[in-house]
Amino acid sequence: MVNTAGQVIRCKAAVAWEAGKPLVIETVEVAPPQKMEVRLKVLYTSLCRTDVYFWEATGQKPLFPRILGHEASGIVESIGEGVTDVQPGDHVFPVFTGECKECVHCKSKESNMCNLLRINTDRGVMIHDGKSRFSINGKPIFHFVGTSTFSEYTVVHVGCVAKINPLAPLDKVCGVSCGITTGLGAALNVAKPPKGSTVAVFGLGTVGLAAAEGARIAGASRIIGVDLNSSKFELATKFGVTEFVNPKEHNKPVQEVIAEMTDGGVDRSIECTGNVDAMISAFECVHDGWGVAVIVGIPHKDAVFKTHPMKLLQERTLKGTFFGNFKASDLPSLVEKYMNKELELEKFITHEIPFTEINKAFEYMLKGEGLRCIIRMDG
Amino acid sequence: MVNTAGQVIRCKAAVAWEAGKPLVIETVEVAPPQKMEVRLKVLYTSLCRTDVYFWEATGQKPLFPRILGHEASGIVESIGEGVTDVQPGDHVFPVFTGECKECVHCKSKESNMCNLLRINTDRGVMIHDGKSRFSINGKPIFHFVGTSTFSEYTVVHVGCVAKINPLAPLDKVCGVSCGITTGLGAALNVAKPPKGSTVAVFGLGTVGLAAAEGARIAGASRIIGVDLNSSKFELATKFGVTEFVNPKEHNKPVQEVIAEMTDGGVDRSIECTGNVDAMISAFECVHDGWGVAVIVGIPHKDAVFKTHPMKLLQERTLKGTFFGNFKASDLPSLVEKYMNKELELEKFITHEIPFTEINKAFEYMLKGEGLRCIIRMDG
Ligand SMILES: NC(=O)c1ccc[n+]([C@@H]2O[C@H](COP(=O)([O-])OP(=O)(O)OC[C@H]3O[C@@H](n4cnc5c(N)ncnc54)[C@H](O)[C@@H]3O)[C@@H](O)[C@H]2O)c1
Ligand SMILES: NC(=O)c1ccc[n+]([C@@H]2O[C@H](COP(=O)([O-])OP(=O)(O)OC[C@H]3O[C@@H](n4cnc5c(N)ncnc54)[C@H](O)[C@@H]3O)[C@@H](O)[C@H]2O)c1
Ligand SMILES: [Zn+2]
Ligand SMILES: [Zn+2]
Ligand SMILES: [Zn+2]
Ligand SMILES: [Zn+2]
Repeated sequence: MVNTAGQVIRCKAAVAWEAGKPLVIETVEVAPPQKMEVRLKVLYTSLCRTDVYFWEATGQKPLFPRILGHEASGIVESIGEGVTDVQPGDHVFPVFTGECKECVHCKSKESNMCNLLRINTDRGVMIHDGKSRFSINGKPIFHFVGTSTFSEYTVVHVGCVAKINPLAPLDKVCGVSCGITTGLGAALNVAKPPKGSTVAVFGLGTVGLAAAEGARIAGASRIIGVDLNSSKFELATKFGVTEFVNPKEHNKPVQEVIAEMTDGGVDRSIECTGNVDAMISAFECVHDGWGVAVIVGIPHKDAVFKTHPMKLLQERTLKGTFFGNFKASDLPSLVEKYMNKELELEKFITHEIPFTEINKAFEYMLKGEGLRCIIRMDG
Repeated sequence: MVNTAGQVIRCKAAVAWEAGKPLVIETVEVAPPQKMEVRLKVLYTSLCRTDVYFWEATGQKPLFPRILGHEASGIVESIGEGVTDVQPGDHVFPVFTGECKECVHCKSKESNMCNLLRINTDRGVMIHDGKSRFSINGKPIFHFVGTSTFSEYTVVHVGCVAKINPLAPLDKVCGVSCGITTGLGAALNVAKPPKGSTVAVFGLGTVGLAAAEGARIAGASRIIGVDLNSSKFELATKFGVTEFVNPKEHNKPVQEVIAEMTDGGVDRSIECTGNVDAMISAFECVHDGWGVAVIVGIPHKDAVFKTHPMKLLQERTLKGTFFGNFKASDLPSLVEKYMNKELELEKFITHEIPFTEINKAFEYMLKGEGLRCIIRMDG
C-alpha cells in the first residue's frame, strides 16, 4: 500500500446529484481525517432501504449532491489526531449508530442512541468542523449518516467504526453493519419472543428476515411473514418463516387476519417496512394482555402513527429501535458468531455486482428482487 | 342477620336514569344470585372517575337506567349454584377486572384481561343469562362493569369477588378495589421505575397519586406531578410528588417543559387523566433510549392516540394497563400490606358522606375537590 496518510485521496465515488436520478461514478477528492476521525478504504458495500429513501427524498429531507451508503466493510487507511482505538490496516465496519462512550446513552446498558453519534439523516457534514471531507473540483459533496460508503474511501468519526476479526471475509459480513444486525437485534434485544411463542414479521427484506432469524433463534414456534410482495415468501422459508400473509389477498385489515390465525393475536410483532400503516397493523395484531410490537422501519417524515388508546390499555406494548438496540461495540461479537457458524450470513446475499454497476442494486431493490446485493468496490 | 338467601331483596339503590342527571335513590328489587354468582351487601363505596364518564355518557356509550359504582367493600349475603370460593359472611371487594381462572389470560402471569370477566362497559346484564338482577316494578335496571355498587345489595360473578381479611376496616380499604390498586400497579407492575429514576405522573387524582406513591415505594428520586388543577398540588406532596407542572402555566407543550426540567425527558411517565392529549404528552415526555410511558386513563370512545413513529424508533416504550395489571386474587395481599402498615390508605380519603347524599360525591369530583369520597351505605 502506498502511504496516503495526510494526503487528499482522489478516488471513485457514486454521487447522487439529484433525488431519484441514477448515481454517477465520479472522481472525488477525499480529505484526510481530522481530529477523532478515521479514513477508510471501503472494500464492500450493500444497499439498504434507508439509502433508497434518502435518494428518492420524497418522504425525507432532500440533501444533494450526496454520497449515500452505510452498510459496508473495509480497512482503516489512516487516522486523525487523537484516535487510539483503531490503526491503519484494521478491518472495520463503518456504523451509522456510533458511540462516543461518554454520554448518558453510551453509559446506559439500555440505549444505543448516543447523543453525539446517533443517526442524523439531515446532517451532511462532519461533526468536528461542520464541513464535508468529499469534494469535486473544490465543490463539497454531502455525507450521509456519517458513513457515505458508496466511495472507495470515506471519512468517519472514530466512534462510528467497529474493529472486527481480520480473518472474517469482508464481503460476507458486510450486512452486519446495518440490516442483519438491525433485524436480529429487533428480535433478540427488543421483542424477545419467549420460547414457543408466535411472532409476526412485517416486511420480508433483509431486515425483516434477520428479525425472523432472530425469532427462530429465540425459539418462536410460529413465525408469520407479512409482505405485499408474494415473491418474497419462497426465500423467507430459509429464515424460519412458517406462514405467510399477503395483505392484498384479504378483504379485511391484516391485523384481523392475523388475530384469526392466532386466536387473538401474536405474542410479538416486528415491523420492518417503513410504511406507517404496516406499523399500525403490527401494533394492533399483537395479543392483548402481553403482546409486544417493535417498530424498525424508517417512516416518512410526515407519517403519523394512530391508534385507539384502548388498544394500549388492553395491555399491549409498543416500542421502536434503531439498529436493533445493538451498540457499535457489539458488532465484533456478531462477527465471531458468524465465524463460529452460530450465525448464517450468506443466505442474505442474493446478488453481487462491481461498483461501476451500483445502479443495478437500486433496480433490484425497487423491483423487490432478492435481498442484499454486495457491491465490490474494486470491481 | 335475617336469612334472605334465595329471596328477592328490596333495598335502596342510586339509579342513574339519564346521562348527567343527579342519581335518584330508589327502592329496587335485587334478584337472588344465579349460577356462579354472589349477592353482596355493600357497606362502603366510593366514586371513581370512570363512573363519572359513564354517567356523563358524552365520550362513552349511554346505557340507562343504570346502577353505577365499582369501588366498594362489603359482605357476602348469599351465593348461587356452584360457588365454593366464598361463603355468606365473607368480607369482600367486588372487582371490575374478574378472573375465571381458566382462560389464557388467567393462566398467564402477565395478563389480568380475563376473556370472560374483563371490564366490559357496554354490557349492562349478567353473563349467565343476559339479564339484569336489578328491577323496579318489574322493569330492569342495567348493571355497570359487573359490579354496580351504588346499591345496598348487588349481584356479581364469583370471579369478580376478592375475599379479604375480615379484620380490615372496610371503609379504609374500599379504594383498594379500584383506584389505589390501579395507580400502585401502574407504577410497581408496569412502569417499574428503577431506583433513583425520574417519574412524571399526569393527573393527580386518586389513581395518579397512588401511582406517585408506587413510584416513591420503588425508589424514584424525582416525581413530577402534572395537573391542570393547581389545587391538587398541595395534597400531592403527601404522596411523594416532588415537583409540579400545570400545563396551563406554560406557553409550550408540557412534554417540552418536562424535557427541559429533566435534561431530555423522564425515565418513566404514568398517565392518569383519561385525556388523550395528556396520553400523547406522557408518551412524548419520556427520555429517548429507555423511557417507558404507561397509559391508565379511560379514553373517550372516539379518541385517537397520535404520534410521530420516530418518537418510537428513538427507543421509547408505550404501554397501557387495566387495574395496574393486578388480578383480583392479588387484592387480599394489598389489604395485608395495609394491615402491616406498609401501605397508607387513609390519606386517599378526603370526604365521607351517607348514601342518601351520593350526588355530593359527583359534585366534589366534578369540582376537582379532594380525592376519594367514602359513601356509607348505612347512612
Ligand atoms: N431502525 C433501524 O435501525 C433500521 C436499520 C435498517 C433499515 N431500517 C428500515 O427497515 C426497513 C426494511 O429495510 P430493508 O432493507 O429490509 O428493506 P426492503 O425494501 O428490502 O424490505 C422491505 C419489505 O417490506 C415490504 N413492504 C413494504 N410495504 C409493506 C406493507 N405495507 N406491508 C407489508 N410489507 C411491506 C416490501 O415488499 C419489502 O419486501 C426500511 O424501512 C429501512 O429503512 C431501519
Ligand atoms: N385503567 C384502569 O384500570 C383505570 C382504573 C381506574 C381509573 N381509571 C381512569 O384513571 C383516570 C383517573 O381516575 P381518578 O379517579 O384518579 O380521576 P380524578 O378525576 O380524581 O383525577 C384526574 C385528574 O386528572 C386531571 N386532569 C384532567 N385532564 C388533564 C390533563 N389534560 N392534563 C393534566 N391533568 C389532567 C384532573 O384535574 C384530575 O386532578 C380516569 O381516566 C379513570 O377513568 C382507569
Ligand atoms: Zn440500513
Ligand atoms: Zn455517546
Ligand atoms: Zn375505578
Ligand atoms: Zn379468565
